[in-house]
Amino acid sequence: MITLRPIGTVRSPYTDSAQIPKGPGAQHEAEGVLALLPEFEPGLMDIEGFSHLYVIWVFDRSVDYDLLARPPIDDRPHGVFATRSPRRPNPIGLTVVRLLRREGAQLFVRGLDMLDGTPIVDLKPYLSSVPLEEIRRGWLAEAEARARDAAAKGA
Amino acid sequence: MITLRPIGTVRSPYTDSAQIPKGPGAQHEAEGVLALLPEFEPGLMDIEGFSHLYVIWVFDRSVDYDLLARPPIDDRPHGVFATRSPRRPNPIGLTVVRLLRREGAQLFVRGLDMLDGTPIVDLKPYLSSVPLEEIRRGWLAEAEARARDAAAKGA
Repeated sequence: MITLRPIGTVRSPYTDSAQIPKGPGAQHEAEGVLALLPEFEPGLMDIEGFSHLYVIWVFDRSVDYDLLARPPIDDRPHGVFATRSPRRPNPIGLTVVRLLRREGAQLFVRGLDMLDGTPIVDLKPYLSSVPLEEIRRGWLAEAEARARDAAAKGA
Repeated sequence: MITLRPIGTVRSPYTDSAQIPKGPGAQHEAEGVLALLPEFEPGLMDIEGFSHLYVIWVFDRSVDYDLLARPPIDDRPHGVFATRSPRRPNPIGLTVVRLLRREGAQLFVRGLDMLDGTPIVDLKPYLSSVPLEEIRRGWLAEAEARARDAAAKGA
């Protein structure tokens, strides 16, 4: 067992998970603040040099988990580790944000997809990228294709 | 406080952190296994469709933390959240691996940078990539440039 303690809190425009864009083509352009506890401010030294950060956070309003998840974009179940479902054995979230600026222990960022008040447990610099042409997106690409087909038929 | 429990263990060729490539141009091509506990195997359904995974794990051999870290590649300190130092307030590690194949609850992967026996706490599909030209790498790019200059002068 490993015990984590929050190093800060997300200030996000989202107060209800229904407000967070999901599904094919969802854009996460929401801006907000990663408000670290003042005691951790020295740990942010030089972070301004990085354009993007990983935010590791806790789905604090998620209870329990399912090994099979039904993502909003698909009507078929998938293993929870092949999804970003909040109902996971360890309710950890991961988001890549763009760092806009820092003011003391507050990081102003773009690209939030978490609720206001979400506990942050770690930040890391985003250092490298897998070339786009190497990424395969499994069931998600298939579900997106089905959604596009359905939209085309409905049009 | 949030309590995590391991969902599995990393089988890696590295038994000592000195064996793990670090610094400028470090390549992480090590292959190994993400050995999930059998009870979590259903959570892997459809994961084979993804080329890359995020592995969230615990620096279980790290004790305590420093808010200023001295990375091996640089002689200057940086805030711990601007580094991948193991000595972090919450000792969580994050690695992107390429998924080679699955056998039951075992995922054969390439790109490990963690020690043998490392506890895994979550897996997520790697879905997208920040365009390379948008990534700024702060102090790390500067330290790499200094290392290259020093190598050129020494040559």
